[in-house]
Amino acid sequence: MAKVAVHPNHRLISSEDVKGTNVYATDGTAIGDVDHLLIDNVCGRVAYAVIRFGGFLGLGYSHYPIPWAALKYEVKLGGYVTGITQQQLRDAPVFSIEAWGNRSVEATVHKHFGVANYWDLAAPA
Amino acid sequence: MAKVAVHPNHRLISSEDVKGTNVYATDGTAIGDVDHLLIDNVCGRVAYAVIRFGGFLGLGYSHYPIPWAALKYEVKLGGYVTGITQQQLRDAPVFSIEAWGNRSVEATVHKHFGVANYWDLAAPA
Repeated sequence: MAKVAVHPNHRLISSEDVKGTNVYATDGTAIGDVDHLLIDNVCGRVAYAVIRFGGFLGLGYSHYPIPWAALKYEVKLGGYVTGITQQQLRDAPVFSIEAWGNRSVEATVHKHFGVANYWDLAAPA
Repeated sequence: MAKVAVHPNHRLISSEDVKGTNVYATDGTAIGDVDHLLIDNVCGRVAYAVIRFGGFLGLGYSHYPIPWAALKYEVKLGGYVTGITQQQLRDAPVFSIEAWGNRSVEATVHKHFGVANYWDLAAPA
C-alpha cells in the first residue's frame, strides 16, 4: 500500500487545488476563476462551479454558481471554457438560500444556461 | 443575480469543506476521514476519495485513494459508509506516480474494490 501525495494527471484535480482555476469565454478572453465547486455527495457529480467573475460584468467581482455542464475543461488551457454570455449572467435566476436543494429552482437555472440538469446525468448508483 | 455564500443543502458540499468528512465501516465504526477528493475535470465526476485511515490498519495514519463508487454518502450520518475491509486495504494495488492516468492500473484498483470504473459511469458530455 502506498501513500499518494502526487497526482500529476492533469485530468484529475484535488479538491484542495480547485480554487483559482481560470475560466475563459469561447473567444479566449479570461472572464474569471473558480472559487469553489459544489459536489453532490450522493451521486458523486460536480453540480456547480461557483465562479468569481471579474470585470466581465462591469460590476467588480461577483460570484455566481454555473451549472457544471455549461463549462468544458480544456486540458491544454488548464482551465474551463464557457459559452455563457454577459446577458445570460445578468438575467440569471436569483439563487437564494432556499433555492439550494429545490429542484424546480435548480432546473430553472439549468434551463436558463441551456444545459441538462446535473442530476439527470448521474448514472444509477 | 445573487451572491451565494451559503448552501445548506447537505447533499451538496463545497470543495472547500470536503476535508474531514467521516468514513464509517458498515458496522458503524469510524475508520477514518476524507483528506481530499480527486475530481475528473473532464467528465465532472468524483473519481477517488483519498481517505486518511487511522488505527483501522494498526499502522497509525495512512492515506489511500478509494474509488468513489466504494463509498456511499449517508445524509443522516453526514459521512460515507464503505464495505471495504482491512484485508482489501492491505492487499490493495500500489498507486505509484505513474499509475495516475494509467487506465489499466486504475482499472485494477477498481476491480480490487469490486466497483465499476468511474469513467464507465460518466454520461456522455
